[in-house]
Amino acid sequence: MPKLSSAGTMEPTTATFFDLVRDDLPDVEARMRRAPDGGPSRLEGAIEHLLKSGGKRLRPTLVLLIGRMLSADRDSLINLAASIEMLHTATLVHDDLIDGALVRRGLPTLNAQWTAGATVLTGDYVFARAAHLASQIGSLPLMEQFARTLMVIVQGEITQIFRDGNPDPRQAYYDRIYAKTASLFEMATRGAAMLSPVGDGGLEAMRRFGYHLGMAFQIVDDSLDFIGDAAQVGKPVGSDLRQGLITLPTLFYAETQERPDLLASLQNGRLEPSEIGTLVEAVRQSGAVDLALEEARRTTTIAETFLSGMPDTPERAALYQAARYVVDRTL
Amino acid sequence: MPKLSSAGTMEPTTATFFDLVRDDLPDVEARMRRAPDGGPSRLEGAIEHLLKSGGKRLRPTLVLLIGRMLSADRDSLINLAASIEMLHTATLVHDDLIDGALVRRGLPTLNAQWTAGATVLTGDYVFARAAHLASQIGSLPLMEQFARTLMVIVQGEITQIFRDGNPDPRQAYYDRIYAKTASLFEMATRGAAMLSPVGDGGLEAMRRFGYHLGMAFQIVDDSLDFIGDAAQVGKPVGSDLRQGLITLPTLFYAETQERPDLLASLQNGRLEPSEIGTLVEAVRQSGAVDLALEEARRTTTIAETFLSGMPDTPERAALYQAARYVVDRTL
Repeated sequence: MPKLSSAGTMEPTTATFFDLVRDDLPDVEARMRRAPDGGPSRLEGAIEHLLKSGGKRLRPTLVLLIGRMLSADRDSLINLAASIEMLHTATLVHDDLIDGALVRRGLPTLNAQWTAGATVLTGDYVFARAAHLASQIGSLPLMEQFARTLMVIVQGEITQIFRDGNPDPRQAYYDRIYAKTASLFEMATRGAAMLSPVGDGGLEAMRRFGYHLGMAFQIVDDSLDFIGDAAQVGKPVGSDLRQGLITLPTLFYAETQERPDLLASLQNGRLEPSEIGTLVEAVRQSGAVDLALEEARRTTTIAETFLSGMPDTPERAALYQAARYVVDRTL
Repeated sequence: MPKLSSAGTMEPTTATFFDLVRDDLPDVEARMRRAPDGGPSRLEGAIEHLLKSGGKRLRPTLVLLIGRMLSADRDSLINLAASIEMLHTATLVHDDLIDGALVRRGLPTLNAQWTAGATVLTGDYVFARAAHLASQIGSLPLMEQFARTLMVIVQGEITQIFRDGNPDPRQAYYDRIYAKTASLFEMATRGAAMLSPVGDGGLEAMRRFGYHLGMAFQIVDDSLDFIGDAAQVGKPVGSDLRQGLITLPTLFYAETQERPDLLASLQNGRLEPSEIGTLVEAVRQSGAVDLALEEARRTTTIAETFLSGMPDTPERAALYQAARYVVDRTL
């Protein structure tokens, strides 16, 4: 399986699909760091910290690979990739504040160091920077998509807070991970196609590729939360469930054990921490996590079908690899 | 002096400059309320509440008057006006949360009713709606300006939190009110000109009109905080100072009394609440508030000079009235 170095970049020997964009990603990073306003150094320091604790840059990589496969303008792709990663970063700042998370990827979160007020405002500033990058792409339809995607992401979180999503637990879960993850993947993949000379069919194929890949990515994330070890994942095993968040493995567990009462108890916060600890272990021991990972693999296979009609280029081959990586990764 | 009804709209007898946009403002309101995503009713309810506790719609009125004076497309103006008022609304949501304000214009704030997390996210959603409205204007330069203005506003607040602004107290004050208020006025007035067939000279004149008007508006706000009665202003007299915020009347007081030590004591939070109460009364009794209001009048006069080269239309006459209203208002 591919291994990640502590800096969050792929080891060169395993993740060949990152190789194709090795010369582009540094430009994306530089674009994200370039303050259009010569902002105060305190904010630049915060942004540097946030970008350092960033991840694998999978979303920018998808943008770059699809755009290159479809002959999009490089500079526009760099701006799109940077704006999407910046938007992702902004949502994490407010998420970590709301969740009270103190560590992300081994580095302290902003809210672990600053007051709530300063953290809210820094998140707002990162949103503004993301919107500014999006405005640099030079496409009004993409700008609109950017705003719509932000609406979807935030609405998903609000639905989660107020627990007024779909009454069907499985559908509520799919709605939530669409809002949380797949919507931005969609924007990355469809957005790259929008910058390319393709028709509506190509746009829709790339949207669906991103949608399914994003859904699979989040299902894998939610599964790794149960099986990864704490040091690797950077948070305690079963942390979602410990925070009252019901993800696919727990849903499969409740379904296979025929324990619908379990979901109600979790939703109403009626379980003691010790009971939840026992439940985490039970989910781990059951086949529920494997069932979830199987679903992620099936979802990735669906995603891959939308690549088949695309130009047969090294980038397309890399996109197949990226799809495999999404389900085979361990972090 | 003009009086405001409880709904925040102008009494027709006094505020004639609002008359010219009487048929346009309802369209701006409708545009702000129109959910592009058929969003969940809970969020629509929150937006309805926020828009109800909104103010006089001075910024949209400036957009509409300038745009009409300069023959801009009406639909683009409505979108610009709505996006600016929505951006203003979004910043207030996070401001009230950070300041712990429980009431705005006589209505409970969102954070008085919801958790901090839900309030942060609702503010984010309103930002997204504002960005979506901005994307509907159909102008990439305006979209960029939108993102830049948001950066300026947020940076101003962060500078205030960390108290690392200009070491000169007066300059720090001007920088702060530019970020807080004048930057968005500028965007409104210059933005309306950007939608109109005018050259760079016209754009710059309208930017300066907005800049000076916005500076005057905030100086008047900061002065009314000392002289208004609590019921009318909706917060205790001298509330800025009580929260440690040094505004122009206090600066003039410290200067005329030759009390530079006062500013240092305030900045370092070394004054007891009773001492601050005494100080509020002293500022009120001194001529400092009048000095501040005089400065606001002079600033408005400068703003007006940028109207002189504009087309001699009823809208221009209304803009002169609006400028007078900014300094003569009591709320």
